[in-house]
Amino acid sequence: MSETDKAPIDFWFDFSSPYGYLLSECIDEVAARYGRKVRWHPILLGVVFQATGSAPLTLQNATKATYSVRDFARSARYMDVPYNPPSRFPLPTQNAARAFYWLHSQDCALARRFAHGVYRALFVDDRDISAPDTVLEIAANLGVDRNSLAAALQSPEIKARLKAEVEQAMQAGVFGSPHVLIDGEPFFGADRLPQIEKWLATGGF
Amino acid sequence: MSETDKAPIDFWFDFSSPYGYLLSECIDEVAARYGRKVRWHPILLGVVFQATGSAPLTLQNATKATYSVRDFARSARYMDVPYNPPSRFPLPTQNAARAFYWLHSQDCALARRFAHGVYRALFVDDRDISAPDTVLEIAANLGVDRNSLAAALQSPEIKARLKAEVEQAMQAGVFGSPHVLIDGEPFFGADRLPQIEKWLATGGF
Repeated sequence: MSETDKAPIDFWFDFSSPYGYLLSECIDEVAARYGRKVRWHPILLGVVFQATGSAPLTLQNATKATYSVRDFARSARYMDVPYNPPSRFPLPTQNAARAFYWLHSQDCALARRFAHGVYRALFVDDRDISAPDTVLEIAANLGVDRNSLAAALQSPEIKARLKAEVEQAMQAGVFGSPHVLIDGEPFFGADRLPQIEKWLATGGF
Repeated sequence: MSETDKAPIDFWFDFSSPYGYLLSECIDEVAARYGRKVRWHPILLGVVFQATGSAPLTLQNATKATYSVRDFARSARYMDVPYNPPSRFPLPTQNAARAFYWLHSQDCALARRFAHGVYRALFVDDRDISAPDTVLEIAANLGVDRNSLAAALQSPEIKARLKAEVEQAMQAGVFGSPHVLIDGEPFFGADRLPQIEKWLATGGF
């Protein structure tokens, strides 16, 4: 099979997920090294957690929450990714996710730049990415028409698209963020990056 | 500070924890590379989970359980550690933990060999390590007097020792298995081994 025949890999994440952010900063580069494209799928972890009876790491017990906040920052340093602990966490991400899918329907590369912008706004610049204005500003800085996007955020089609993506994610076995699927093999967590790379390099181990 | 002055690192685990087993197969070697000893502390995760309102990965939601079972085996292959999925999981580990502390009070190195024996009995040979007979047999194979150990498993002193170890673990911030503490820095999970190694090599990052 030539490199161009290789199937893309899937990358599910929530825009409020610290480990999703860490993986977003390197997944494309790692995949490209093995001739793979990555399909990005922002989802709403709140919906997934409600369906599976789970909760964010920082809203579980206090000991685990304290550890998790420490591990977010240490893992970022370990992966050499800029990281400032956000003052709002977790926070709703449906506006950012809807904007992503609307942009994606027009320009994949633009949607990718937007996703990086949203993640860095939250985890580097401590912006409130739950606010429509912040989402519109991030997009406008990439040349997107602000009014068109504002209208799209309220459109039934985009709301339905995000809902469908969350449903498909759960059907694919997603229970947290980030979640990567390579030729049917699931990997949960930014800390599975070394296994992801080995899987891509060897075709399975 | 010379290497001999470096403080030992602490390693907490439950004998039924797959990721605890994976880390047990390499933590001593990694620590030794940086002039460190490791203090092993078997604990009872059931008690910790009851205190923190948590549960084993395979008893959470079905999707996460399915993934976890797959990840146990894949992570073992990734780390090059022999692993056969146990037919009993999770299972009670107080007999194995009590035996460890009794042996440790007499001979640290023997207790370490016993711990490896218990883990391999469960995760390689699919033995029922919850049964006192299995625990006694593993110890007897290392030259331990079976009757003395059988008596020790029922002694109030050993029961109290294990209880105290679980309490101390929780006070140290342990909420799962494996958990490693290096000079005050906590690391949760076998997948933190690369960070553990970098921390040992650099003194913090």
